[in-house]
Amino acid sequence: MKVGDTHYRSIWLAVDGHTVEIIDQTRMPHAFAVERLTTLDQAAHAIKAMLVRGAPLIGATAAYGIALHMRADASDAGLATAAETLMATRPTAVNLRWAIDEMRTLLAPLPTARRADAAYARAGAIADEDVEINRRIGLNGLPIIEALAATRPAGRPVNILTHCNAGWLATVDWGTATSPIYQAVEKGIAVHVWVDETRPRNQGAHLTAWEMASHGVPHTLIVDNAGGHLMQRGRVDMVIVGTDRTTARGDVCNKIGTYLKALAAHDNGVPFYVALPSPTIDWTVDDGVRDIPIEERSGEEVSHLWGRTDGGEVTRVRISPEASPSGNPAFDVTPARLVTALITERGVCPATREGLRGLFPERQAA
Amino acid sequence: MKVGDTHYRSIWLAVDGHTVEIIDQTRMPHAFAVERLTTLDQAAHAIKAMLVRGAPLIGATAAYGIALHMRADASDAGLATAAETLMATRPTAVNLRWAIDEMRTLLAPLPTARRADAAYARAGAIADEDVEINRRIGLNGLPIIEALAATRPAGRPVNILTHCNAGWLATVDWGTATSPIYQAVEKGIAVHVWVDETRPRNQGAHLTAWEMASHGVPHTLIVDNAGGHLMQRGRVDMVIVGTDRTTARGDVCNKIGTYLKALAAHDNGVPFYVALPSPTIDWTVDDGVRDIPIEERSGEEVSHLWGRTDGGEVTRVRISPEASPSGNPAFDVTPARLVTALITERGVCPATREGLRGLFPERQAA
Repeated sequence: MKVGDTHYRSIWLAVDGHTVEIIDQTRMPHAFAVERLTTLDQAAHAIKAMLVRGAPLIGATAAYGIALHMRADASDAGLATAAETLMATRPTAVNLRWAIDEMRTLLAPLPTARRADAAYARAGAIADEDVEINRRIGLNGLPIIEALAATRPAGRPVNILTHCNAGWLATVDWGTATSPIYQAVEKGIAVHVWVDETRPRNQGAHLTAWEMASHGVPHTLIVDNAGGHLMQRGRVDMVIVGTDRTTARGDVCNKIGTYLKALAAHDNGVPFYVALPSPTIDWTVDDGVRDIPIEERSGEEVSHLWGRTDGGEVTRVRISPEASPSGNPAFDVTPARLVTALITERGVCPATREGLRGLFPERQAA
Repeated sequence: MKVGDTHYRSIWLAVDGHTVEIIDQTRMPHAFAVERLTTLDQAAHAIKAMLVRGAPLIGATAAYGIALHMRADASDAGLATAAETLMATRPTAVNLRWAIDEMRTLLAPLPTARRADAAYARAGAIADEDVEINRRIGLNGLPIIEALAATRPAGRPVNILTHCNAGWLATVDWGTATSPIYQAVEKGIAVHVWVDETRPRNQGAHLTAWEMASHGVPHTLIVDNAGGHLMQRGRVDMVIVGTDRTTARGDVCNKIGTYLKALAAHDNGVPFYVALPSPTIDWTVDDGVRDIPIEERSGEEVSHLWGRTDGGEVTRVRISPEASPSGNPAFDVTPARLVTALITERGVCPATREGLRGLFPERQAA
């Protein structure tokens, strides 16, 4: 999407045709820094150190990482090294594994001389496919915003609350939860986005707020505590969030705090939508509250925060007493009963087993 | 309560019998600094700059501020000056006005020579009365924790979640929401407290966590997003919070985010208690969601945070893009239907008009 007047993706090929460029997301929102990746190790570092994050973007970066290494060493040993190096960066990332397997399956049978070109082509296609999936999510979600806009008094925007960053920075372009919002903006619909800061890692304050500001979308940053009150007072027309994992019956595992917003939306009659590319559906799990293990991350993410001092230095500060331990569950599960509908690249469906299977009939046998 | 091995109140008279000592709460949790107040202006500054905060503590500080000035100038003009100076510090604080009126009514008829002694006596009594109210809230709430403890397997503590700081630092001693917790600890009941950090001002991380650590109460700091997930997984046995204002039917206006925790408690069958001294009941309002205006505070409290760098410097950092505006509603209203019971100095009652009038029958005519 746009950064000022320029259109960006979150990963792209430089004009030389082989260097890969990314935005260093660890430096946001205080700096917009493009990093050039020319080696496998640089690509692996970008994933491991979270210069890139978000499942689709991690997958695309891994694919390009293999392509970079094929220029240096297209042998079977080189392919194995690339796959192992990248897999070790974030071992639990599903898209990472998928992209690496995809590349290996494609490249292994090819003569070494053809591997680099084929790798770049497939990496580019993986990126393009992600963009297309997200664009479709946006087009499928757009009528929901249009319908709300049609009921608003003239001049009053549709107020949309989002949590965390399921934006274009988490994907290659458009984002998932943000895609219907960007589509609405493209169509000239007046929207205003409430951006949850999303403690502990502040992806809302760091990334979603930056996306909105850069693309010129009217928005207001709020603390995670504020959304319920805003809904009580009629200041939120819809909620839209992303998901890390969706169960076969429509339970949604997403960034910690999502469940609280879903409860508030339900209590106030505010529709609560979840935008998802179909690969995030886990057809093997039904009851997400019971069966999805929740990652417990370092308590330092709670006790410490990153920010920029008035003097311009980006630093880490501690907010809590040394003697106080911190707990940090990273995700929660929103039961399907609180979800108004799921927005996928194939269309919009109820958050039910029947709804999902209606859109993905090839899963009937599952 | 205790700071290490020493018992503290949040305000007390120094051994000289006239200097007033307080804890500078703006420096917490990174420093424990006692400030000495010897003049009216110092007392006014302590309130205005929020070295002291919390309605009961503000009231006690104002009372002592008048006493300090009576030593310097006990004339009618001196009394008027003291009252005006203190009233201007935080004009909307109800306890501030109450304490000043109380002191003025007492002192005005007295000969000037007797005013200083009378002022100190009444200020001390105001502080003692607050301690007694809070102690009773704790004794009334204690059986709730005892009953939960009786159902726990041996060795498993009662897990109590609290939001913001309704602790002894907000009062003269004991606190309101924390008082049943401290009473339980005194009785040797095993408790563990989940401390919501309470963005934007982080009173949970700064003050409640510090109180718990200082008194030796097992606790874990969490982000405000985490409580719903913890309740889903059975890791919270009860919630207890304070309130700034309680309506005649039991709606509760408290720090922003309280409503979200009440929703999660209700959704998971976790009892949700509100501890309150009866002066916070506003008998003139019924429907809090409709009729209580919510203070909108500076967006800088959202975009900026205070903390201590690894180098030990306490500084402010910005977490959001310069181009992003912030919204900052400071309170929300939890409807009475989500409140299991109210814990007052007179006893525990349902969050209903009948419940409150049962405890406060003198209000029947209201």
